[in-house]
Amino acid sequence: MDAIEKKVRASFAKQGLMSTLDAEMTSVGTGTVEIRCSFDAKWTQQNGFVHAGVITSILDSACGYAALSMAPAESEVLSVEFKVNLLAPAVGEAFVARAVVKRAGKTLTICSADAYALNGGREKLIATMLATMMNVAEKAS
Amino acid sequence: MDAIEKKVRASFAKQGLMSTLDAEMTSVGTGTVEIRCSFDAKWTQQNGFVHAGVITSILDSACGYAALSMAPAESEVLSVEFKVNLLAPAVGEAFVARAVVKRAGKTLTICSADAYALNGGREKLIATMLATMMNVAEKAS
Amino acid sequence: MDAIEKKVRASFAKQGLMSTLDAEMTSVGTGTVEIRCSFDAKWTQQNGFVHAGVITSILDSACGYAALSMAPAESEVLSVEFKVNLLAPAVGEAFVARAVVKRAGKTLTICSADAYALNGGREKLIATMLATMMNVAEKAS
Amino acid sequence: MDAIEKKVRASFAKQGLMSTLDAEMTSVGTGTVEIRCSFDAKWTQQNGFVHAGVITSILDSACGYAALSMAPAESEVLSVEFKVNLLAPAVGEAFVARAVVKRAGKTLTICSADAYALNGGREKLIATMLATMMNVAEKAS
Repeated sequence: MDAIEKKVRASFAKQGLMSTLDAEMTSVGTGTVEIRCSFDAKWTQQNGFVHAGVITSILDSACGYAALSMAPAESEVLSVEFKVNLLAPAVGEAFVARAVVKRAGKTLTICSADAYALNGGREKLIATMLATMMNVAEKAS
Repeated sequence: MDAIEKKVRASFAKQGLMSTLDAEMTSVGTGTVEIRCSFDAKWTQQNGFVHAGVITSILDSACGYAALSMAPAESEVLSVEFKVNLLAPAVGEAFVARAVVKRAGKTLTICSADAYALNGGREKLIATMLATMMNVAEKAS
Repeated sequence: MDAIEKKVRASFAKQGLMSTLDAEMTSVGTGTVEIRCSFDAKWTQQNGFVHAGVITSILDSACGYAALSMAPAESEVLSVEFKVNLLAPAVGEAFVARAVVKRAGKTLTICSADAYALNGGREKLIATMLATMMNVAEKAS
Repeated sequence: MDAIEKKVRASFAKQGLMSTLDAEMTSVGTGTVEIRCSFDAKWTQQNGFVHAGVITSILDSACGYAALSMAPAESEVLSVEFKVNLLAPAVGEAFVARAVVKRAGKTLTICSADAYALNGGREKLIATMLATMMNVAEKAS
């Protein structure tokens, strides 16, 4: 595990929400991140599908960490904004978000990400995000 | 409580996520909804702020139910898409999302919503959403 | 006309597109700008409505100049991203975009804007924008 | 030229704006469309770059026609909403927008599109769009 992956995984481990969702970072590359979580009735909307806000959560974290993997050494990353299209009901055993950096800038990094529902080994595209992330100086701790 | 508020509150009560977040629907009007939840370390990102996905969750539910309050009688509402700008860190004792319908159509309803952090009785604007909701025929159950 | 309005209007006057559209900056305040243009068949889509891209143009310029009106003295403003909902066909004698700053930051400024069609003295809401603008150091010239 | 391409090109030919921009539909496939236009000082913003609203115009038309290429026979397509990230200044001899359908539904179709600046045979990514299009019954004429 190289220094960048280490930095990304250390930050991910500090996200209370990802731990509450039992989410796992299943892949980290330069400008790409994959995050996965399982279905639980705790995360549903009124029809029993997973709530758009939960799918957004793994998409947003995937975009943020994809951006962080290309950020300057002393930087961390905050979400400026994102747009999500919900393409199909979030029905499945598990859900995976895959983010990729479209453009890494000095201050802003633009990422896109797709979310898939997993059912019996098959993947179905359920949502897509286009997001703007911002590099900010890491706080001393 | 009139028929519309009853329908809105009944659907809200079925959202597993809102119950998991201990979220409360603090107001329902024609084309307006307010949802509130409290801070918990379970919902944080790496800096201890509440995760953008959680703020998005209450903004999205508020928009959806604002749309539902103006939807045809036999309809329910699904999120088509939303865009969220994060304006300030989600730091506070509690968070409130206030949604308002900008245009209610036969098929699509457009809503905007603002989220505020509450600290010692003061409100601070932390996020804003612009969302597209869709009326769909209610499933028999 | 104060220094800020002068700076905003001088930049607006340099936008070739606004001049091509015969657009007029009808109001400038601190954090608010209004831009107006007239109908012309040159700007239409396939049904004879004004094209979404033209309505977006006046919304984007209105947001950019609303942001500029609150930017540091030596800064200019560039558009990072925007999202537009088209709420009704752009049918009318003229169109007006009104932008307001939601949050002015050191680097990023978030604006919302509404566009209206004007017909016989009546206004109809036809589109809404939520945009992110960025302050950048003004180039010497 | 098959029936779908014919329908797409006939609608494109009716867009006053595309003709004003001297835009050309350089490719049409099932779920994909490419539109190109040339630089002209008429379309600029204050720095002499092409205005975001013009780039949005070719991105939006490309998304709309990509959606139309997969729409039911008697339908036309209207833009519901789009989000655009501006990734680099629109500086170049010409600009091309390439759209692809991400999900074609009965009512709504979701498209993504990228815009490139062309300079001496080289392409540079300058903007990206994520858009929602709606199928509507074609008006008799």
